Amino acid sequence: MRMPAHDLSLNAPPAPGAVPATERYAAVRAATERLARPLSPEDCGAQSMPDASPVKWHLAHTTWFFETFILERFEPQFAPFDADFRVLFNSYYQGVGRQHPRPQRGLLTRPGLATVRQWRGQVDARMRRLLELRGDDPELATLLTLGLQHEQQHQELIATDVKHLLSCHPACPAYQDAPGPAHDAAAAPLRWRHFDAGLAHIGHEGPGFCFDNELPRHPVWLQPYDLATRPVTNAEYRAFIDAGGYRDPVWWLAEGWDWRRAQQLEQPLYWRADGAGGWQEFTLAGAQPLADARPVVHLSYFEADAYARWADARLPTEAEWEHAAQECGAAAGQGHFADSGVLHPLPAASQQTSAGSDGPALQQLFGDVWEWTSSSYAPYPGFRPAAGAVGEYNGKFMVNQYVLRGGSCATPAGHARASYRNFFPTAARWQFSGLRLARDAR
Amino acid sequence: MRMPAHDLSLNAPPAPGAVPATERYAAVRAATERLARPLSPEDCGAQSMPDASPVKWHLAHTTWFFETFILERFEPQFAPFDADFRVLFNSYYQGVGRQHPRPQRGLLTRPGLATVRQWRGQVDARMRRLLELRGDDPELATLLTLGLQHEQQHQELIATDVKHLLSCHPACPAYQDAPGPAHDAAAAPLRWRHFDAGLAHIGHEGPGFCFDNELPRHPVWLQPYDLATRPVTNAEYRAFIDAGGYRDPVWWLAEGWDWRRAQQLEQPLYWRADGAGGWQEFTLAGAQPLADARPVVHLSYFEADAYARWADARLPTEAEWEHAAQECGAAAGQGHFADSGVLHPLPAASQQTSAGSDGPALQQLFGDVWEWTSSSYAPYPGFRPAAGAVGEYNGKFMVNQYVLRGGSCATPAGHARASYRNFFPTAARWQFSGLRLARDAR
Amino acid sequence: MRMPAHDLSLNAPPAPGAVPATERYAAVRAATERLARPLSPEDCGAQSMPDASPVKWHLAHTTWFFETFILERFEPQFAPFDADFRVLFNSYYQGVGRQHPRPQRGLLTRPGLATVRQWRGQVDARMRRLLELRGDDPELATLLTLGLQHEQQHQELIATDVKHLLSCHPACPAYQDAPGPAHDAAAAPLRWRHFDAGLAHIGHEGPGFCFDNELPRHPVWLQPYDLATRPVTNAEYRAFIDAGGYRDPVWWLAEGWDWRRAQQLEQPLYWRADGAGGWQEFTLAGAQPLADARPVVHLSYFEADAYARWADARLPTEAEWEHAAQECGAAAGQGHFADSGVLHPLPAASQQTSAGSDGPALQQLFGDVWEWTSSSYAPYPGFRPAAGAVGEYNGKFMVNQYVLRGGSCATPAGHARASYRNFFPTAARWQFSGLRLARDAR
Amino acid sequence: MRMPAHDLSLNAPPAPGAVPATERYAAVRAATERLARPLSPEDCGAQSMPDASPVKWHLAHTTWFFETFILERFEPQFAPFDADFRVLFNSYYQGVGRQHPRPQRGLLTRPGLATVRQWRGQVDARMRRLLELRGDDPELATLLTLGLQHEQQHQELIATDVKHLLSCHPACPAYQDAPGPAHDAAAAPLRWRHFDAGLAHIGHEGPGFCFDNELPRHPVWLQPYDLATRPVTNAEYRAFIDAGGYRDPVWWLAEGWDWRRAQQLEQPLYWRADGAGGWQEFTLAGAQPLADARPVVHLSYFEADAYARWADARLPTEAEWEHAAQECGAAAGQGHFADSGVLHPLPAASQQTSAGSDGPALQQLFGDVWEWTSSSYAPYPGFRPAAGAVGEYNGKFMVNQYVLRGGSCATPAGHARASYRNFFPTAARWQFSGLRLARDAR
Repeated sequence: MRMPAHDLSLNAPPAPGAVPATERYAAVRAATERLARPLSPEDCGAQSMPDASPVKWHLAHTTWFFETFILERFEPQFAPFDADFRVLFNSYYQGVGRQHPRPQRGLLTRPGLATVRQWRGQVDARMRRLLELRGDDPELATLLTLGLQHEQQHQELIATDVKHLLSCHPACPAYQDAPGPAHDAAAAPLRWRHFDAGLAHIGHEGPGFCFDNELPRHPVWLQPYDLATRPVTNAEYRAFIDAGGYRDPVWWLAEGWDWRRAQQLEQPLYWRADGAGGWQEFTLAGAQPLADARPVVHLSYFEADAYARWADARLPTEAEWEHAAQECGAAAGQGHFADSGVLHPLPAASQQTSAGSDGPALQQLFGDVWEWTSSSYAPYPGFRPAAGAVGEYNGKFMVNQYVLRGGSCATPAGHARASYRNFFPTAARWQFSGLRLARDAR
Repeated sequence: MRMPAHDLSLNAPPAPGAVPATERYAAVRAATERLARPLSPEDCGAQSMPDASPVKWHLAHTTWFFETFILERFEPQFAPFDADFRVLFNSYYQGVGRQHPRPQRGLLTRPGLATVRQWRGQVDARMRRLLELRGDDPELATLLTLGLQHEQQHQELIATDVKHLLSCHPACPAYQDAPGPAHDAAAAPLRWRHFDAGLAHIGHEGPGFCFDNELPRHPVWLQPYDLATRPVTNAEYRAFIDAGGYRDPVWWLAEGWDWRRAQQLEQPLYWRADGAGGWQEFTLAGAQPLADARPVVHLSYFEADAYARWADARLPTEAEWEHAAQECGAAAGQGHFADSGVLHPLPAASQQTSAGSDGPALQQLFGDVWEWTSSSYAPYPGFRPAAGAVGEYNGKFMVNQYVLRGGSCATPAGHARASYRNFFPTAARWQFSGLRLARDAR
Repeated sequence: MRMPAHDLSLNAPPAPGAVPATERYAAVRAATERLARPLSPEDCGAQSMPDASPVKWHLAHTTWFFETFILERFEPQFAPFDADFRVLFNSYYQGVGRQHPRPQRGLLTRPGLATVRQWRGQVDARMRRLLELRGDDPELATLLTLGLQHEQQHQELIATDVKHLLSCHPACPAYQDAPGPAHDAAAAPLRWRHFDAGLAHIGHEGPGFCFDNELPRHPVWLQPYDLATRPVTNAEYRAFIDAGGYRDPVWWLAEGWDWRRAQQLEQPLYWRADGAGGWQEFTLAGAQPLADARPVVHLSYFEADAYARWADARLPTEAEWEHAAQECGAAAGQGHFADSGVLHPLPAASQQTSAGSDGPALQQLFGDVWEWTSSSYAPYPGFRPAAGAVGEYNGKFMVNQYVLRGGSCATPAGHARASYRNFFPTAARWQFSGLRLARDAR
Repeated sequence: MRMPAHDLSLNAPPAPGAVPATERYAAVRAATERLARPLSPEDCGAQSMPDASPVKWHLAHTTWFFETFILERFEPQFAPFDADFRVLFNSYYQGVGRQHPRPQRGLLTRPGLATVRQWRGQVDARMRRLLELRGDDPELATLLTLGLQHEQQHQELIATDVKHLLSCHPACPAYQDAPGPAHDAAAAPLRWRHFDAGLAHIGHEGPGFCFDNELPRHPVWLQPYDLATRPVTNAEYRAFIDAGGYRDPVWWLAEGWDWRRAQQLEQPLYWRADGAGGWQEFTLAGAQPLADARPVVHLSYFEADAYARWADARLPTEAEWEHAAQECGAAAGQGHFADSGVLHPLPAASQQTSAGSDGPALQQLFGDVWEWTSSSYAPYPGFRPAAGAVGEYNGKFMVNQYVLRGGSCATPAGHARASYRNFFPTAARWQFSGLRLARDAR
């Protein structure tokens, strides 16, 4: 199963230029390097499963993007840093030529990490020069924004892929210090917010950047529904386990049950029995006691769906989710994102907000955990992929994957928005994926 | 991969009683036996792949349904024909107890075909007695209709499963005489019919039987679209092959391309090169020269989608399909179904109908070939599975499968309707599955 | 993994003609049909795993042998019963043309069992006529003997393959009545017989038939060794299980341990816990309480080797086994073979024989269970495969298989001899395979 | 499939002390580090297949051996460098505790290469101190020799594992400069040397070190045979390819043919078509034109056996090989071994030696390429594994593997001897494995 680094085409003008292009560029590139800083060359070279890529590959591939799609096009005397890298670090752009097979990225011991860093440095210098000269070229500006969005997606993958790699080590090594306070406050109680039936509109509404899968904005009829005020917590999910949820096929989709049984799964990806009847959770800060109040994370679609069924609820559709985000006026920028440095979800704050005429407020819509929806990843009506290699694969992944919404603790702030569509196959668990319950309105 | 024999619960009152229950029962049961008549005990015992079941198993499982869900409940002194059969011929009803593993159904050499036929005969006699006594019991009537609908689903599976089995034999043995005239008329030209944007309603609208996945009827907003007047033909699909369609990843979903390449597929399931630059097609009448004018059949979702992309079109959604069927007033009963005895799709008749104010008529909406839609199989808003073992698995298959509409040449007439939702995984090809093109309206 | 029906070439003149060829032919062919008599067409058509073949295939393939290698050569106006059968029932003779893929033999529902029986009858009549006319042709006599030996091999495979098929049925159906007395006498105590070092000769010594892998007879130097007087019993093997033998890697070859663990094996192939702390054994007479005194059977090489190691002993080499059989003057004809009709091993009789100068007598060298040796199946020095298609595959299987000696309760009497080399891969368990211990002499 | 780093127990006194223990220790350890010197941390961390290990793992595991089996036993105040390393770098010694799963050695990014080198340095210092104090302790001396032999085995594996890793890189990177002269002299012509029948003795004959699988020395009867004077060359093997050898099942063992076909193999492991009708060979000096005169290398057992059959010959048995080595007085020290620094086989020198009464001399018995024999890896009569964890796995690998003799260009000089038994499964190709022909004497 191939796990794409998501589609890339651009369907909107670049973000307005409050921040100069050179600064935006430098900030995103620096954030990537900050992520890799705690890691050794060996850490950056290993690939723990076909779905994940080595950090070195992420560092190189994001650089390849700028060299291939921008410098090659705009530099007067373009010469690649190393012509071989064009194949080595192509992900899946058939228009750009051949690719190295994905499951063997961990065998690319050459170039070494130091060389990749040199390449990054050289490309950064060339990009800076180019942006200073021609930063107001609209096509260049568009591609720049796309390249930066692309690099931000890979920042999240660096976090998830390193986490998976470290989890394979028997010593559970930590990537960073402990994520958050040792003792959480209790999670806010779960309440339901009601939404009426009616014609909603989903999809990106300008201005600002979006990927082409967020377009066109279009009407969707929604039946009345309720949405939970926050994601499901570890304590709630543990109750499902304790009630025998992993042993009873009645809660599971048939394919999910076969999947669970074939792999003998009894808990979320990074949970481990602590030997005393409790649970530990592997985090980027190493193994930690499971924190009751935090959102449950690293669930497959199958687990999220089974939990929802057990809880007499269901997953929301992506239209329900997006409509709710619009209605509640939730600002994507206010969640707990990667920029906090705490690469683990935190509890929903207890709130004093009364349930006004609009009902209780929705918490943690953005950040903390990606929320599985019941919507398969499909083109919006009128979807048109962009032209050229950059947009070549736009619709290629729109089958047998499901949409997740809202961003996670590993998503760069500013990358999330209400119309953003993340997507993964139903068995994927290594992303920061959790769930929020929905139900038909009663 | 498990291939369910589809969900079974009933959500509507039984069909009105123009035809007495005993006659309806006898007619359906006799049709099943007619299908098995040309087959030897060996033909009926073999299982050619895990997705398919032996004919003997279909004969037994449909009988098990009546014995388990009706006779056990309504017979005063119920005693099963053979208590072991309860496990042997349970498909996936966990409420009824254990099941024999699906891929090993071909190893159930006991009971033999003769015993299964005795069982059918005994159950038929008991059912007749029961229906004569209590045929007006509404619960019994409901379960009877469900059992007959269930048996009709298995009639179609008998045809597809036997076809797959015979296709594994190097001699390409025929199940029946040649399907249709040796020389077809040309297919009607493909035209487009336009549908305006607006709020449509899909889902079953009483009276009459439907499965619970067709409910509740609900509004759906549709953007404007065009639908082709008939399914894609063999000649049209061959043009895709001749143009290198199976060699160029640009037309394929990424997962579809991987699937195609891993299996080295170059044509639809039953096509074989005839050694002289042309094609033969394996049919239930043995190998036949490929007939240009007939609908292409035995395509996976991946192939249907790739063809549509190549043809600068797309698959319709199930809502688009159902809305069109409603708009055009197409009667499900008028298509080419299994009752014709010709278990192979036939060409669309050439039509003189002018394109009136409504546009050209849609042909072959019902019968001939199931039409892949781009809609993943998902619950309708407000969907509630029925209670009890009969409805136990209602939503179990609603993931990673796609909806097909319209029925096929192997579907019993009267079984199809505009709201009927068939569903299969994207790689399934042994059903009579083809496609009709759609496009965003221009 | 392909499981050949063993090699076939002939390297010795046919057995002397006390019995006329027509009678020998008729007797062997009738024995085959006797074996199939209790089975239905469905029983005869199913294939429970790639290593096993359907009974119908055995009935047809043995007939194919006579038609292809004898009738086609010697009949004046040869015409095959059905030309298609030449491919369908070829096992692996590339010189004869293509073969149907082995794992799909169960899908050959045509021809039916009745047709195969007609074919057998027609070939039998033609063979009788041919033998009456030309029975003294030496080439014909040689091929006849080969064909009959070949058919006897397949008789044993019919028993083992049917046993495996029936074992897959949840009802454990019986092929025959109970094998032997309900209560066994105790097994004879296990004693050791010593053999001195020296130059032994192994390989077939005329007159009489042998397969080419038994030739040439040649010298082998043996170091001193002891051999157990009888095979290991169920009670002895159960002690190994009770002592945790299946849980401790110290007793197992590394590959054997991986094999055992991957399949979660905890006992011999057909043992099942009886739910009360004891064991049942599936036999051709259905499930039976495990009989302490009978030889343990249906072991893989890995299990036989692990048991021997646990018992502070080892498997014998094939040269040690054959030398012992020669020394002890054991007559192959005296064991418990298939002709008894009891297709299950019986206990070693208690003996009064004192340990004379030669040491205690060896029991059950022939019949009851095939005995795994530690010798990999390899050509004898000077081995030359026979010419032509009949001998085409002589050395093809001489890798990664191990030799078994002595014959079993499913081997036709008269088929076994001291130099006979049976061979199977190390993981094979569905043959009647057990073990006899050996040790370096102390 | 697990690929052991071979068994380790010691059955002979250490080599006589011309060279002090500290110097022997330092020399072997330094040779290991020399091998790793051209490699980056990434090169040393990657694992290209389950059979191969990362170089870092080899560096650590050999150190683990000295720390676990010597320092822990003999150091007064033993404390491990890092207690976790005991599990991480255990290969398969169950007596020492758990092991990290072999296929995941490439995921052990911690400790890094620098830490492993520190560990080596610390252990070296402690070993030197210990040897200076107690170097004449016989048990210590025995374990020291064993540890050094063990490390030499891993030196060879470093070469073969790095070669495989680099071969996975599309750029074919070189580990070293070109192996040998650009233009070879022609290979010496292949001649046959005859050996008479008689009782030979094989197995190690003291003094000096050997592994326990070389014991006890014992008599073996040999039939007369001829042995080729040198291994098969690239030119000779290419003739087999050109003659269609990879397309004709007649030359192949049945299992070999299935293996070849399943993987679509058409040439030895590291051969690549050069695009102009010729061949290149990937070597540790990168891709090189195929050199006619050099021994063919990186063959599986199946390929070696198929070639021999095509050449109307066969593989020798290990007894034939060892007897010939004894008869010819070949000195193991004179071959082309790893110490030359040229990690690729070289051509057999043209010789002027006339065929005297003894026949022509045997060339390249030692070094250049390991020679497959037809002998399955099995215990010698009277074999007894050593006690304790060091000898725990002595017989664990004696099944489904075949013996190779003579050492290769990657074997340390002084490590080879006439009785040395290397062994690998029949499909293994990444060792420097070739073949020498034998035949039954005519």
